[in-house]
Amino acid sequence: VRIDVFFGPSTLTPVDVQERVVVVIDVFRASTTITVAIANGARRVIPYDSAEAAIAAAKTLASEGIVLAGERRMFRIDGFDLGNSPAEFTAQMVRGKSVILTTTNGTGALVAAAGAREVLVGAFVNFSAVLRRLRVVAEEGADVSIVCAGRDRQFSLEDAVCAGGFVRGLARCQTAVELNDAALAARRLQRSYRHEVGRLRADAGHGRALTAAGFGGDLTLCTTLDAYPVVPVYAERQVTRQPATLDPTPPPRARSR
Amino acid sequence: VRIDVFFGPSTLTPVDVQERVVVVIDVFRASTTITVAIANGARRVIPYDSAEAAIAAAKTLASEGIVLAGERRMFRIDGFDLGNSPAEFTAQMVRGKSVILTTTNGTGALVAAAGAREVLVGAFVNFSAVLRRLRVVAEEGADVSIVCAGRDRQFSLEDAVCAGGFVRGLARCQTAVELNDAALAARRLQRSYRHEVGRLRADAGHGRALTAAGFGGDLTLCTTLDAYPVVPVYAERQVTRQPATLDPTPPPRARSR
Repeated sequence: VRIDVFFGPSTLTPVDVQERVVVVIDVFRASTTITVAIANGARRVIPYDSAEAAIAAAKTLASEGIVLAGERRMFRIDGFDLGNSPAEFTAQMVRGKSVILTTTNGTGALVAAAGAREVLVGAFVNFSAVLRRLRVVAEEGADVSIVCAGRDRQFSLEDAVCAGGFVRGLARCQTAVELNDAALAARRLQRSYRHEVGRLRADAGHGRALTAAGFGGDLTLCTTLDAYPVVPVYAERQVTRQPATLDPTPPPRARSR
Repeated sequence: VRIDVFFGPSTLTPVDVQERVVVVIDVFRASTTITVAIANGARRVIPYDSAEAAIAAAKTLASEGIVLAGERRMFRIDGFDLGNSPAEFTAQMVRGKSVILTTTNGTGALVAAAGAREVLVGAFVNFSAVLRRLRVVAEEGADVSIVCAGRDRQFSLEDAVCAGGFVRGLARCQTAVELNDAALAARRLQRSYRHEVGRLRADAGHGRALTAAGFGGDLTLCTTLDAYPVVPVYAERQVTRQPATLDPTPPPRARSR
């Protein structure tokens, strides 16, 4: 089994996703936000590249109950229901609804994964749930690509450490595993941060920027391991919850804040 | 002082090099080869993107004594004097000559650094010499960008670890230093490999590929710290030795093999 990590979607080529299971990671904050929305009962999350496309989709789907969400330069887009703070995506706000989401970095990574056998959304908040799914697919012989969204096309530390956790968890229970250089590096970074994941809030440039912009509370949630144990799956341009047959864990209650 | 690391030249934007001192790293093997050639007395090394351009330059410069060198898929290009094995660049072969060099990854990184205040070629073999120069420029207040050539646009472990050494060495003697995420990660990776740099030969994908292709001997040289203590400087499309006024270290003798 191959396990490859990519530190940004721009380094990804079609051969890196074809017939593979892909995990897309944008810890601060899109993949955390998507996970919380799905855990809190959103029917689906539909990611869009541009605010314009998101607004157009909101008009088309208005009849079915939608939440229009997204950020630019970290702040909620004017006129949108929500920004990109995961704690805003409460059950009261999203249950049964379609969440239309546009963010700076996370959306592009999902689109870059198009053509994969299966695309999962991973973060610290659903780490163990996603790892369980990855172990099943690796058991079946599927190669795994872990794609860090990064920040403005640059390497981002929090995504790399999260990716390294998946590499470590997967490599541990596979006998013959091949890792690319980024997977080896991510695993060592994860080891280096394993007792201090919270420190990523201050170390990572994106963490410092979010804190300075008043979103420090988001970072605490984003670095809380396994707070929302669901597996969001991206297929046909939308993210939904992994079918219950594959995901026996009930959604957590009273998690919305 | 800012110290930024870039894990591939494709993530570099002009603002990341302007008015900065840039170190370009391609440990396996171009930056090692360039360093060895300069240490062994080559008058200059002129990098070219394409074999065609290198051949054209060789014809133009034939009268002044040239060595035509380069690789594709790791092997010497047909008809070239040398490949990209640093040990081939002996004093006997290169002293006083212009080395025309085309390699798969290293050349692009040098070109991407165009417009910088100063561009240095760094590797393990000249690590301390380059670090000394970086400390001087950081003392003067210049920001530093460390550009890993990577491999086929992907992250490469050996370049990242070497970059991390420069970050550690620089950050240690600066009071106020700002690091981007890649610099923080590189520093942690360097720490993780500090007692086992030789292990990069087997861990790094490029190392395994070179060993499989019969270039294992190159890797030993490429991971030998400070074997060739010179500072190659890239300016006006050619690499030359840093002027003696700035570089008091005499060239090593009897190093060529």
